[in-house]
Amino acid sequence: MKIPPVKGTRDFYPQDMAVRNWLIDGWKKVSLRNGFEEYDGPIFEYLKMFQIKSGDEIAEQLFSLTDRGGRELALRPEITPTLARMVNQKINSLTKPIKWFSVPRLFRAERPQKGRLREFFQWNIDIIGTDDVLADAEVIFATVDYLQEVGLTQHDVQVKISSRKLLAAGLKNIGIPEDKLASLYALLDKYDKLARNIFQSELSRQVPDSDVAGKILDFMNATAVGEVPDIVGTNAEIEESIQELARLYQLLEQMGVSRYCGLYPSIVRGLAYYTGVVYEVHAVGGELRAIGGGGRYDNLLADFGGPRIPATGMGLGDCVLEILLRERGLLEKNIPVPQLECFVASVDKKFFEKVIEIATKLRRRGRSANFSYKAAGLSKQLKQASAQGAKNCIIIGEEFKNNQLVVKDMTTGEQKTVDYDKFFEQLETESK
Amino acid sequence: MKIPPVKGTRDFYPQDMAVRNWLIDGWKKVSLRNGFEEYDGPIFEYLKMFQIKSGDEIAEQLFSLTDRGGRELALRPEITPTLARMVNQKINSLTKPIKWFSVPRLFRAERPQKGRLREFFQWNIDIIGTDDVLADAEVIFATVDYLQEVGLTQHDVQVKISSRKLLAAGLKNIGIPEDKLASLYALLDKYDKLARNIFQSELSRQVPDSDVAGKILDFMNATAVGEVPDIVGTNAEIEESIQELARLYQLLEQMGVSRYCGLYPSIVRGLAYYTGVVYEVHAVGGELRAIGGGGRYDNLLADFGGPRIPATGMGLGDCVLEILLRERGLLEKNIPVPQLECFVASVDKKFFEKVIEIATKLRRRGRSANFSYKAAGLSKQLKQASAQGAKNCIIIGEEFKNNQLVVKDMTTGEQKTVDYDKFFEQLETESK
Repeated sequence: MKIPPVKGTRDFYPQDMAVRNWLIDGWKKVSLRNGFEEYDGPIFEYLKMFQIKSGDEIAEQLFSLTDRGGRELALRPEITPTLARMVNQKINSLTKPIKWFSVPRLFRAERPQKGRLREFFQWNIDIIGTDDVLADAEVIFATVDYLQEVGLTQHDVQVKISSRKLLAAGLKNIGIPEDKLASLYALLDKYDKLARNIFQSELSRQVPDSDVAGKILDFMNATAVGEVPDIVGTNAEIEESIQELARLYQLLEQMGVSRYCGLYPSIVRGLAYYTGVVYEVHAVGGELRAIGGGGRYDNLLADFGGPRIPATGMGLGDCVLEILLRERGLLEKNIPVPQLECFVASVDKKFFEKVIEIATKLRRRGRSANFSYKAAGLSKQLKQASAQGAKNCIIIGEEFKNNQLVVKDMTTGEQKTVDYDKFFEQLETESK
Repeated sequence: MKIPPVKGTRDFYPQDMAVRNWLIDGWKKVSLRNGFEEYDGPIFEYLKMFQIKSGDEIAEQLFSLTDRGGRELALRPEITPTLARMVNQKINSLTKPIKWFSVPRLFRAERPQKGRLREFFQWNIDIIGTDDVLADAEVIFATVDYLQEVGLTQHDVQVKISSRKLLAAGLKNIGIPEDKLASLYALLDKYDKLARNIFQSELSRQVPDSDVAGKILDFMNATAVGEVPDIVGTNAEIEESIQELARLYQLLEQMGVSRYCGLYPSIVRGLAYYTGVVYEVHAVGGELRAIGGGGRYDNLLADFGGPRIPATGMGLGDCVLEILLRERGLLEKNIPVPQLECFVASVDKKFFEKVIEIATKLRRRGRSANFSYKAAGLSKQLKQASAQGAKNCIIIGEEFKNNQLVVKDMTTGEQKTVDYDKFFEQLETESK
């Protein structure tokens, strides 16, 4: 019986696994050097946890399941609700600011498309416990630190920064009521994705006053933050939001990453929970969707039953990133080639016991080693060693009666005869 | 709204994550040095895939879900069916023998108990493409290599080895029909777990002939493989199975791990797909359930629509292993303590821009660095540095007007003044 894999999932054969490990190891390395600690939660949570504050899009795309006790569960589509739950559970014993990262496997029950699968990995970094825009700058810096690390320049990627606070203040200033904001964000976030006429008709439905709707369109088309007051008017909150964006940009300059960043008033982000700075990481040119994004979510911990503690964070998935890196020629050349340190061979099957003994001895001393399971000729064994990318081949031949091994360097082809005991002594020394 | 985590799942706070990473890194390291390559599959597959050849117990414990297209899916309770599917898909392009490992996250919808959760990690190693018992020995060697690596001795753990082939031949020789074997294996596997009277009555139900049932009980109580022919009689297949176990033990001796291994005729394993050597890893003494187990499954690839290719493999979970390591005092002392390389502080908030510049410069050069977000006094910053386990504290003070930094070794308390440019030059050199 032949059963196919489920559409939108991936099989990671060793060569695919090498790519996945390289991406995730890079995320981990950069997170750690930026002072973040790793955490993770369960793959599934109670269904309602993901319905509280996620965007409509996410809530519609849940893989839900029912356990034997009839409880409604769902596979996590994002890790931020789990983060909020975990932080709330131990809020009093955690030192603030909390700087945590995670590389969760996430799930969305949507139609698979280029760069969008039903199962993927996402790098998440979050800073909880400070309302200073410096924390937003730290998160953006760490994001760019990774992008630079893998060789992406400011000509390849840009972080497009905006402010949900500025957008909210502007929309309220032109008369949009507070309780209409969340559904409007979800629509505005699709401004670039929806056909113009579909967007227009949905906007008219949500905002019947054509004058107000026109101002919203002008806002979406603004090319600089400074244009915003001319469109929506001004007040203290609008001014404050503009100042905050200016300070953020200055901090990014001090951090040396401002060339990767720009201010774009039309960035909205679909998730309902953002409250301040928001941003998206986009490939420059081409048709790829956002590689990642994030922002400030000062109300989320309180919404999940905890105290009102400010927070900011970013998520960046593996699918679009991998496509971009491949497009720019930054993938294949960076993936480490698997290497076997030793292949143990023999000139005669009478030495087979010794082959096994030496290979397992090498492994116990931390050296990767393989050998042929079949009593094949030496040339066939050497071929197998090559196929496995072996660095050295240890050959047991007639020299063994003098307690000697032949070590063949598989790159240069050079061979030398070494004393068995000295060979293992040397290994011990090198390990230290 | 406060929502709890789902029972039987785990939250991995940074200190828990350190344990999980240490366990998984150890599995990966040992797999690689034993010449295995890493693979992984999706978290969910078609439900029917897990119903084909798994034991009844596993099939009953599936977390199933239905996607929007009405397809019946399940979270993977084991990775072997996925492995069979993946190998079958590329059977012609894969070099045999295939030596693969994986560290999948797995799911079982059962009542959580000590050492048994609904979500866990499992180390899997498999060798596909050879029917030689040498491959079984390789898998057992790699398992013991890991157990030794983490400090478990033969007084802590034992690999109890038996043969499903011997058991099948024995049962058939006393008159059990082929089609009754699978359900009988599932029962015999519970010999030590079920109350004696419950086991007896279930055995009488499956095997009404009390003479035959008595022989089965004698088999389960046999303490040496040599006793088996006296109980069930003998034939070519029984002899062959006994010879195979003897050769396996001899290979384990050559590999230097036989002291960790013993032959136990009563080891059965619940899974329906085993066909040859089977084994379980048990803690010596105490009440813990098996840490891991495995065996030969020569028919599974064919059962999944592929060619008839022999295979053998092992799985070992993280839950019981962690309990055992903790009990034996082998956990805490081995978990690496997270270390921050530099904490950047200043004597006055006028240097704050420099703090940011230096911290981010350190990170870009691969050094982990943090700083205080608040303009706190130096002693408070040093306290924060200590709390974060910082190795060094870079202090920006009045020396900075001479382009100098103070570097404080947080272990010894020693301070030295260094030239700013030389400090970063030195870092570059150390990186190379």
